[in-house]
Amino acid sequence: MTRGEARRPRMAAGPEFDRIRAMTAAARAPDNSRVRLGPGDDAAVLELRTGELLVVSCDMSVEDVHFRRAWLTWEEIGWRSVAAALSDLAAMGAAPAGALLSVALAPELGSEVAEALSAGAGDCLRAFACPLVGGDLARSPGPAVIDVSVLGTTPEPISRAGAAPGDELWLTGRLGGAAVAASSWARGLEPDPRARVAFVRPVPRLEEVAWLRDRLPIRAAIDLSDGLAGDARHMAVASDVRLRLDADSIPLHDTLEEFKDRGVALRVALTGGEDYELLIAVAPGDRSGFEREFESRFGLPLTRIGAVEPGSDVWLRNSDGSEGPLSVGGFDHFAGPPP
Amino acid sequence: MTRGEARRPRMAAGPEFDRIRAMTAAARAPDNSRVRLGPGDDAAVLELRTGELLVVSCDMSVEDVHFRRAWLTWEEIGWRSVAAALSDLAAMGAAPAGALLSVALAPELGSEVAEALSAGAGDCLRAFACPLVGGDLARSPGPAVIDVSVLGTTPEPISRAGAAPGDELWLTGRLGGAAVAASSWARGLEPDPRARVAFVRPVPRLEEVAWLRDRLPIRAAIDLSDGLAGDARHMAVASDVRLRLDADSIPLHDTLEEFKDRGVALRVALTGGEDYELLIAVAPGDRSGFEREFESRFGLPLTRIGAVEPGSDVWLRNSDGSEGPLSVGGFDHFAGPPP
Repeated sequence: MTRGEARRPRMAAGPEFDRIRAMTAAARAPDNSRVRLGPGDDAAVLELRTGELLVVSCDMSVEDVHFRRAWLTWEEIGWRSVAAALSDLAAMGAAPAGALLSVALAPELGSEVAEALSAGAGDCLRAFACPLVGGDLARSPGPAVIDVSVLGTTPEPISRAGAAPGDELWLTGRLGGAAVAASSWARGLEPDPRARVAFVRPVPRLEEVAWLRDRLPIRAAIDLSDGLAGDARHMAVASDVRLRLDADSIPLHDTLEEFKDRGVALRVALTGGEDYELLIAVAPGDRSGFEREFESRFGLPLTRIGAVEPGSDVWLRNSDGSEGPLSVGGFDHFAGPPP
Repeated sequence: MTRGEARRPRMAAGPEFDRIRAMTAAARAPDNSRVRLGPGDDAAVLELRTGELLVVSCDMSVEDVHFRRAWLTWEEIGWRSVAAALSDLAAMGAAPAGALLSVALAPELGSEVAEALSAGAGDCLRAFACPLVGGDLARSPGPAVIDVSVLGTTPEPISRAGAAPGDELWLTGRLGGAAVAASSWARGLEPDPRARVAFVRPVPRLEEVAWLRDRLPIRAAIDLSDGLAGDARHMAVASDVRLRLDADSIPLHDTLEEFKDRGVALRVALTGGEDYELLIAVAPGDRSGFEREFESRFGLPLTRIGAVEPGSDVWLRNSDGSEGPLSVGGFDHFAGPPP
């Protein structure tokens, strides 16, 4: 299993995205008047009869595609599946209202596996005060499959499409820890415990986004499931802008800070998926002292990593001031040689 | 594949039910104050901040467990998956507000399979004016897995727990068609087209329940996914009552009406799953002419098939007036020999 396989499928482009787009197009109802924001953002937004807005998303994990039994305990698999789904609510600025958990397991796995998986899922749901409101359990002759649907509410959902030139780009946390762990496993090594925990116990940034939106004019947000390079591109496309990332400012996971070659470390941070940190576009303003307040509250950095500009695509600005487009898979203008 | 395997897993009792109960118990949040009705009914009910009640349910189908590719087209697999989930909303008396569709497919299947599946799912969603509000597509090295989550709204959800002694039991439609089709396939035969359509294109009784609840004091409802015998038992347990079914009044599917032995036909109708008709308990009253009005509107019978009594379990009353408990898998007091 390569690191690429451990990631969520890329949604920006390519056959996977085309298939999802075809799927949702084929299944769309003619009257979508109550769907404020269709599938394609981190989550969809549905207007209920009372006018309440419901944010909904689903996230399917398949054994040997999204996770490996040899790497994770069933509790960890449960936590990660729920965390990934809740992270979509965080990206929309929504508070969790409920979750549904569907699990397909091989019949030879005992009930203790279903319980361990559910215990991990339950730990994550409880950590974010999200009630479980539905469940289905099926036996499957194939790999374990876990599908988590989440419902959230917010008076004003944040989309990925609202970034405007002049906005600042901010990032929660540090990047690349999950990718370092996956890379170790792929090479047959036990990961550094700090990287392992980033992979097995990602934290949906629900509390952080609630705090941030009370204090900042957030224009757009996206959670980093595919990796900063890919997800920044999603925001750029949806908002019809260019996102400029400042290479030196991107906060690296502790294990990456120890890399000798910052260029290699940066590449891992940019392309490594499943960090579940938030990238937000914020209207410009005086933010002095703000990062310190955030860090002291959440024990995690909040970093300005770039800006929104007119144009398209994601550009990387290097320490010497040179800059250029950061094509996914390309890195033509990348600081440092490929690993 | 036996007929039993084609059915949804029994939820009434046994290891499958215990595992789901353990799963939902393990994953439950401590604060469930907004969960009006937890998982265990046809759907759960969640109270949103505005007071609006949201009915939610999920339903997972696994290839070679719930369906076989050789029997159904991908369009039919899509329709059935959505219909089964929407049927849970019908059982709660809820109007569909949105659906999420997660699909895991083998990578060697082309995008035309995902599109066909989605087209069938979309046909069903459009037929019931339910917008698709989310989708996920994963590749799976194993069987196809389809998980459908549905959201519905109603000011007053109908549970399966409200039946009281003295209530009348009514049933929409005819029973056993899907079981006849599954039985033919299991024997290597092509099913009678009338039975096949019952299996591949079940109809969630959403319009019927909306019409009925405007006119009848419905106390409890359940959709027949496991079969009348099993689902009547669910209602009896949840409501703490006895359900008495009158053997002669149970409407059989056309293909079963042609069986020489009514006892055998009745057994198929009672135990065959996936009819997705509704069993409802209604406060007693004068219902003369009501069935005709229903039938002329929906082209489908509405039949009084029994009554709610004090006690427990499901009892069958035969034409000679004899009656006794209808144990699942038992049929000790059954009219006619086993097939």
